[in-house]
Parts: sequence; structure tokens; C-alpha cells
Amino acid sequence: MDQRRWKAPLWSFVIVVHMLSMEIQSTATNTPNVIVMVMDDMGWGDLGVFGHPSKETPNLDKMAAEGALLPDFYSGNPLCSPSRASFLTGRLPIRNGFYSDNAHARNAYTPQNIVGGIPECEILLPEILKKAGYRSKIIGKWHLGHREQFLPLKHGFDEFYGSTNCHFGPYDDKETPNIPVFRNGEMIGRYYEEFEINQKTGESNMTQLYIEEGLKFIQEQNSAGKPFFLYWTPDATHTPLYASKDFLGNSQRGLYGDAVMELDSGVGRILALLKDLKIDNNTLVFFISDNGAATYEKENGGSTGPFLCGKQTTFEGGMREPTIAWWPGKIQPGLILHQLGSIMDLFTTAIKLAGLEVPQDRIIDGTNLLPALLKQEINTSKSIFYYRGNELMAVRQGLYKAHLWTWTNSIQEFIHQFIEKMIKSETKPIIPTPKSFEVLSFRRQFVKISDDSDNVNFCPGENVTGVMSHQQVNHTDSPLLFNLGLDPGEKYPISNTSAVYKSVMPGLQAVVQEHKKLLVPGTPQLNLCDRAVEHWAPPGCEKLHKCLPVPKSKPVKCVWPH
Amino acid sequence: MDQRRWKAPLWSFVIVVHMLSMEIQSTATNTPNVIVMVMDDMGWGDLGVFGHPSKETPNLDKMAAEGALLPDFYSGNPLCSPSRASFLTGRLPIRNGFYSDNAHARNAYTPQNIVGGIPECEILLPEILKKAGYRSKIIGKWHLGHREQFLPLKHGFDEFYGSTNCHFGPYDDKETPNIPVFRNGEMIGRYYEEFEINQKTGESNMTQLYIEEGLKFIQEQNSAGKPFFLYWTPDATHTPLYASKDFLGNSQRGLYGDAVMELDSGVGRILALLKDLKIDNNTLVFFISDNGAATYEKENGGSTGPFLCGKQTTFEGGMREPTIAWWPGKIQPGLILHQLGSIMDLFTTAIKLAGLEVPQDRIIDGTNLLPALLKQEINTSKSIFYYRGNELMAVRQGLYKAHLWTWTNSIQEFIHQFIEKMIKSETKPIIPTPKSFEVLSFRRQFVKISDDSDNVNFCPGENVTGVMSHQQVNHTDSPLLFNLGLDPGEKYPISNTSAVYKSVMPGLQAVVQEHKKLLVPGTPQLNLCDRAVEHWAPPGCEKLHKCLPVPKSKPVKCVWPH
Repeated sequence: MDQRRWKAPLWSFVIVVHMLSMEIQSTATNTPNVIVMVMDDMGWGDLGVFGHPSKETPNLDKMAAEGALLPDFYSGNPLCSPSRASFLTGRLPIRNGFYSDNAHARNAYTPQNIVGGIPECEILLPEILKKAGYRSKIIGKWHLGHREQFLPLKHGFDEFYGSTNCHFGPYDDKETPNIPVFRNGEMIGRYYEEFEINQKTGESNMTQLYIEEGLKFIQEQNSAGKPFFLYWTPDATHTPLYASKDFLGNSQRGLYGDAVMELDSGVGRILALLKDLKIDNNTLVFFISDNGAATYEKENGGSTGPFLCGKQTTFEGGMREPTIAWWPGKIQPGLILHQLGSIMDLFTTAIKLAGLEVPQDRIIDGTNLLPALLKQEINTSKSIFYYRGNELMAVRQGLYKAHLWTWTNSIQEFIHQFIEKMIKSETKPIIPTPKSFEVLSFRRQFVKISDDSDNVNFCPGENVTGVMSHQQVNHTDSPLLFNLGLDPGEKYPISNTSAVYKSVMPGLQAVVQEHKKLLVPGTPQLNLCDRAVEHWAPPGCEKLHKCLPVPKSKPVKCVWPH
Repeated sequence: MDQRRWKAPLWSFVIVVHMLSMEIQSTATNTPNVIVMVMDDMGWGDLGVFGHPSKETPNLDKMAAEGALLPDFYSGNPLCSPSRASFLTGRLPIRNGFYSDNAHARNAYTPQNIVGGIPECEILLPEILKKAGYRSKIIGKWHLGHREQFLPLKHGFDEFYGSTNCHFGPYDDKETPNIPVFRNGEMIGRYYEEFEINQKTGESNMTQLYIEEGLKFIQEQNSAGKPFFLYWTPDATHTPLYASKDFLGNSQRGLYGDAVMELDSGVGRILALLKDLKIDNNTLVFFISDNGAATYEKENGGSTGPFLCGKQTTFEGGMREPTIAWWPGKIQPGLILHQLGSIMDLFTTAIKLAGLEVPQDRIIDGTNLLPALLKQEINTSKSIFYYRGNELMAVRQGLYKAHLWTWTNSIQEFIHQFIEKMIKSETKPIIPTPKSFEVLSFRRQFVKISDDSDNVNFCPGENVTGVMSHQQVNHTDSPLLFNLGLDPGEKYPISNTSAVYKSVMPGLQAVVQEHKKLLVPGTPQLNLCDRAVEHWAPPGCEKLHKCLPVPKSKPVKCVWPH
């Protein structure tokens, strides 16, 4: 809807209302539906079409062959909650408040003791789409805050089926409550209780429930003749991994691959239904993941393909996403689009598709992908900003990426188990400082660590000297520059004395300056934690007789170690 | 041809000759053609369908969609000459003599000062196919020895267009002659002279010549109504990289990507011609590479995708190959075949396809892929043997791979440049021993090496503790075991105290023992080097007035540093 209409004199009000009513009616038959499928911790390299040797995704590969593959597409953040908030607001987490400034450059998210959530002042995608008559549903993981004021139905969604937080557990419902599963505004059970995830086998029916729920919603909206927005976001590829009985053991890479195969089958079923209902030509479907593969989960994590490091980092493995856009009859089949883009662009694109305008009173980071998708008009001025918490770590424009800051994870986390062992074996304990690491790293060559399961390593098996570091390194005076075309794995920094560095860097520095100049950080929402806000007594608990006593409130600063 | 026929009594000779003549006639219309496309140093991860983000291979991706993709397929060796010799003989280099025992576990090949080549006693694929009336041509790089007795036409090929060795150069024709390009038995010019490769721009027309030559051969054989074997093996992705004018600058990863795009276009043109001539249903086409990506070439090398290390190593990056089989009407389109296989299987498969039998008087390592390709009957007992020179480094069966030996490259090569710098900056020179490396490695954390171009690193940016090493490590008593399904990147060795290790390792050890029991190493062909055998005066040089004086023979042991 053109916002200028509202500036028209009062006498035109009746006409405008009439036009609006017409617009809503017309959307019933013409306004395209939007489905955004956001996977959880799935990596760029996990799709067959993005090269995983296990080849578990025939339906996604077919979706790419029928639609457009976007190899240069990014999440809004290397971590889940901020990335999901960036999608639904079209804005970087630093603007919408989904970050913490408790410590410099730390990733924060929404565990169940988080006090904050999506601020009331943020305008979410379904709130806007409602103006064009869309009915919106989220199926799967919300993660934008779980206290009542933050729930999906308070922020534009008409329906919700899924969980508010990660399916961590099982808990004892005494020290910590299990995470609830919601239908709309009320909980209908808890993970590991009514919604079983078998810890030993990894068996769970959740993905099947999410698939069925998606199919049902599409059928209902089709029958009602209403345009819809479906945010389908199952979480089976996030640890603890799970798959249903029919999929367990089907892949060659264990539970992770089984989960991928089940999600892939779900994608296939959803696209097949759109074809059966003959609404495939009127439905734009995006497939993407919320952040890079959780490489620190080792064999239980996904693949970052050729990219460096994984989730939690601002190297490519942390934010480059497996992305497909599908719209039969509109998007040229088999298109490979090297349009730089981010999950925030799906916000703007969906709004444009509905014939509406994005909010004009704030900076929206998402840009409209329709020219690229429909006419292959590439926006070459598009930039990608890589944040870690409150710090702009890197920027990409074209094929060039400049790191202003680098950090993998802290030395304390990285050698946790090793330090434990050394302390036990040494007469003098070793204090984990960067200096002591040198000694430890040195010795590590000769000590075979058979079980380093307590160590945290966001870049297992990788070591790029001068690029990866266990200390936060400030490169702002002379950023580390990479050509991601020649060097997608960020292994070979371009010398800062080279001609190409001198020609490229001023442009990137200007992009950074412009960005910083216009930046008004939102109030950080992820600073405070409190046991009292955990899921003791979510809405609906009375009906199920599952309300638990709420402990006394004692807000503390959340600890974000990386 | 069934070899038992030759044991029949003499009176049946006339009948046999008659049958043979019928067989040759019938092949003219029914015997399938075979095209094997072997790329040079192209990596598993370079194809679009195997995940490279640059997506430079639309024709190969289409070939895979129309045919079968084989993600678990291997070269015969992590280096070019031995791998190519293994293809054409169906036998491991340790058997056919394409190795050196000058030093333990060293990769050797056929530079122009090599004395040896393919032994006379080896039976090459075209020699066998000739029995079924095939005409055979090699286009591109031979690499099985360049002295007269080793040339393609002496070993069963009817035609040859290409070079005998790598296109290294330019040389001065005094200290070293430039490498010749041959047509059949005679040279028709030299690289950097009649066959230009522009050193500055990387422009060369060679790939176009190789494409045209391939198209012409196919058309000629089709007109003649004869079955053919085309070994199409251009070398543009081997350094020095090159591409023709129309392809220069087309990719987003520089000359390497441009070369890939040109080769991909060649594949497309060849497959299109087969369709135009309506012989696509009678032609089996394989696409593969000779070894892993040359990761030590940094931005000028290919991609190993998710696999560890590259060319020259027996980690997956050194030997896992981008492999496609294409045969419209016979191979189910879009098939993903997790059949373990190697380039040696193409030898056996081509022979079976021609209705012939492999030699019975020697061990043939190649196995017949037709049951897997045509009926999806997977041979689960297939093993892959990973050799480095004269040493069996690793073995794979099913998803499990055991390393008996590990080695990346020597510490001397790895820190060559660094040692040079240290020696210059130190009052006391540092002797490059494993012990001194500890010190250097230690300091390396703090010294940013801006130009380490003289260093050799087969695993840039990678560091898997206890798996990668700069010394040769003997694990035969307790092999390093990986599940390549769970862990394709060989990052997480399975503990040798685990139940899975204890259940899997005896089977793998039995495979190794059986292999070693039957092994009769061939006479090593790559031990001796001699300046006198260089391309001073190849056959045909007189006609071109390009014969150079031959220096006095002085054979020496070749030096193979890794």
C-alpha cells in the first residue's frame, strides 16, 4: 500500500477505504502466498545441490532445479534468535535489540531464562502482511522471547504451532522446567513429556507434526481463498537431533543426516501440495537456514561446505546459508543467482509481493529481491554486515569481504578439557591465559587428546594463521581483506600493500562509515536473565494441570561466553 | 572375448575366426562407444553439483542430472601419472610400475627427464578394445612416459593429439626444451612456441583445439560406423592455468574458474554432438579427474569441497574425484550412486561393455560398474587402496577408512620460506628438524608471514591434531579409523578402545592382509632421471627443423620430495 495515500486530504477517505476493501478482496485470488522455510543450524554444505557427499536432499535439489539457487545468501547473524528476529523485522539485530552489550562482541540468544524479547516497537512481517489480508502462521521454533508479551500472536501471527525456545532437555521440572509446545497462545504440552524426544535413540515425531500442520494450514487457506504467509521452521537439525522412526538410520551420517532427510521430505510434500492445489504459480517459497552449521557439534553438526568455521563466527561458515527461491512460472527454473542477499531481504520481498511498503519511519536492512528473482537484475551495491553481538565484525560488497575484527572463540573454551588435564598432570597449575596457551599448544603436538568433548571449537580441523584467533583482534586500521570469488574459504588475506587492496578498501571503508553513521542501536534485549521467567507456568498450564511454582525473581546479567 | 576359446581344439579355429569377424562387424552398429573425460587436478568440490559456490559447470550439472553422480569415487593415486596409468591398465601403480622406491612413500610422476614409462608387459585399455573393433584416440595429456617406446600409438591408441607431459614452461630450449605437442607419432610443435600459452594473461587456445579434435573424432567414427573409445583429457586446470579469449574473466574465481568454465562448455558440446548424431543411447560417457585439487596452488588450485587436504595426500581431498556417468536410455537420470569405485573400474567396465574379458594372467584392480550403473546393484565388498609411492597408506571399505600411515608433507617443505626468514633473522641458524619446527611453529603464532609462496602446504588452512603430520607416522599397529559417512572431513578419529573400532577394524585389517598377500610389486619405473631423455629431438622434429642437440646421458636417481 502506498503510504502517500495517508497524506491525502480528508475528503478522499471514503475512496481510500473503498480501495482498501477492494485490495483485500483482490488478494484473495491474486496476491501471492509466501512460505519461508527456515531450518535450524543447517549448514550451507548440507544440501545435495551445495555438495554434501551424503546427498540426502533430493526434494531440495529438485526445488533448486525448478527455482533459483542463491549461493551468496546470508543469515542476519551467526546465531539463531538474532537471525530470526532480523528476518521478521527486516532489520539487523543491532537495530531491533536482539543483542547484548554485557561484553564486547558476544553472541546472545533467548534461552528460557532470558528476560527480554522482541520489543513492542518493532513491526513484524505478519503485522504488515495483515494489511493485505494475509493470514499468517508460524510452525516450529519462535525464539523471539517467550514471556507473554513476546509470543507470536502478540506480534501479528494468527496461528502458532511449536515451541518458544530450543528443545533442550530433558529437565526435571524442579531445577528447570521442560520447554513447552504451544498451539496459538497456550501451551499444549512439554518436550520430553507430551512431546517425546527419545534421548537414547533420537526418535521423535515432531518433524512429522510440523509437516502435517503445514499441509493443513495451506489447505485451509486455499479453501478459504485467503492469501497466506507460512513461516515453517522445524528444529530437528539443532541438537538434540531427532528424526521419526521411518527416517532413523536412513542416511549415512547418523542422526543429523536422518533429520535432514526427514526435513527434505517435508519440503517435498509441501511443494507437492502447492502443485496439487494448483497454487504453485501463486506461491513464492524460500528455503534458508538461521545460521551456519554448528561445527562445534562435530559429527552431530552440519557441513559448512568450503567455508571457514561455523555457527557463532563471522567467517563465511557462520553466516552463509543454503538458500533456494521457488515460484513456478515466475522464477526461471535452474537459475543460479549470485545476488548478495540476507534473510532480512525476505521481509522486504514478501511485503513488496503483497503490494505493500516497508515501514518508512525506521531503517530497514532488507532489500527487495524481486528484480533479481524475476528479471535477473542484480543489485551490485548490496552490502552484507556481519555482526557478533554489539560489534560490526566484517562487511562484504561484491566479491570482497573485509574483517574489521576477528575472533573464533576464547582460549578458555577452546582448551577447556586440555587445561583440565594439564592441571591434573602438572604440579604447578597452568592459568589459562593467551601466554599459557602458547605453551599448551606447543605441548599439544605430542599429547593425543582422545576425548576433548568438553572443548568448544567453532572451527574444528581448521587453522588459518593470522586470520583465526582465540583473542578478539581489532583490524579496523587495516582490515583483513579477502576475495571470496578466488578464495571462498578465507584462507589467503590480500596483502595490504597490494594494488587490489588499495583500490578495493576505500569503497568498503566508505560502506562501513555510512553504516555506522546511520546506526542507532536498539535497546539491548539480551542482557538480563532470571530463573523466574522460565517456563514454570506458561499460558494454558492450568488446563493441563502443568503449572509449576515460580521461583522468586532475581534478575542477573546473562553470561555470554563467546 | 572369452579367453577359454583359445583352449579349444585346433579344428574349431575356422569357426572361431568366423565368430570373431562377426563380432567385429556387429560392434559397428551395436557395441557401445566409450568416452572417458579425465580432468587435470580438478577437485571434487569444483563442480556445481558438488557444491562449489561459483557454480561454473552448468553442462556437467546437467550431465549429472541426466546420468549418475558417484560421490564415492576415487583416483588410482593422489598424483597424475600413476593415476592415469592405473586407469589405462586397470591396475594399481604399485603393480604396473608407476611408482618409485627411491624413498619411502613418495609421490613420483613423469617429468620430461624421467627415464621410465609404461612397461611393455602392461596391457592397456585400447589394446583390448581393439579386439572388438574399437578405434581409440587420446586427446590431451598422455603422461605415461614420453620416450618413443612409451608413446600412445605404441600402446594401442590409433590416434593421439596432445602432449606427453605437463605443459610446464616456458623453457629456453637450451637448459631445458619446451614440451612438444604431438599428432599421432610425431610432434607438431611445442608449448609456448607453436602452441602459445600467454604467461601474463593465461590466454591459450589449447582447450578449444582439444574440444574441436574430440568433436571431429566422434563425427569421423560415426560416419565410419565403427565403435570408438575416446580418452579426452585436457589439462587447462593444471598450473600454469589457461583459458581461451572468450572465457578469460568469465568466472568469479579467476583463471582457474575460467578454465573450468571452458572445459564445462566442451563437455556440453561433446554431449550435444552425441545427441545430434543420435548415438547418445549407444555411448557411455564418464567424467572424472586424475587426482584431488592442487590445494598447494592456493587461489590457483581447485576445491576439495568438504574433504581434508588435497593432491599428493592420501586424505580424501587427495583422491576423492568428481565423477559422473552418462548413458541416456540406460542409466536412470538423476541417479545418486554411493558405489565405492575408482578410475581403474572404468578399464574393466569399458571392456565388459565391449563384450570382452579383462586379462586373466594378472591381478586387475578395476571392477565392473555396469551392475551398479544399470541395475543399482551395489558391490559392498569393494575396497579402495590409497597408496603414496611404494606404501599402502590407507584402505576404505563401506563407510570406514583406516589410515595405516599418515603424512601431509615434510616439515622442510612446509616451512621452507619461514626457515629462510628465520635463518636470515637469527644469529644462530635453525636447522629444520622436527624439534626445530616446534620452536618455529611456536613463533609462527606471532610472525605474520605475508608471502609464503615458496612454502608447500598440501592442506592450507587445515590442522587436525593427531591426524595430519609433517613426519611420516606409522599407525599399522593401531590404524586411525574414520567413519566417512559421519565425518567426511576426517576430523574425528574413532577411539581405538571403542566398540565400533573393535568391530570394524578386524575386517579392514583382513582386507589389508589379503591385499598384501597377493601383491607382487611391478618394477618401479619412476626411479631414474636423465637430462638426455628430455624433449630435445622428439619424432617429427626434423620436419619442423626443431631438433635440438641431445646432451650426454647421465642417469641419476630422481628426487621425490613428498
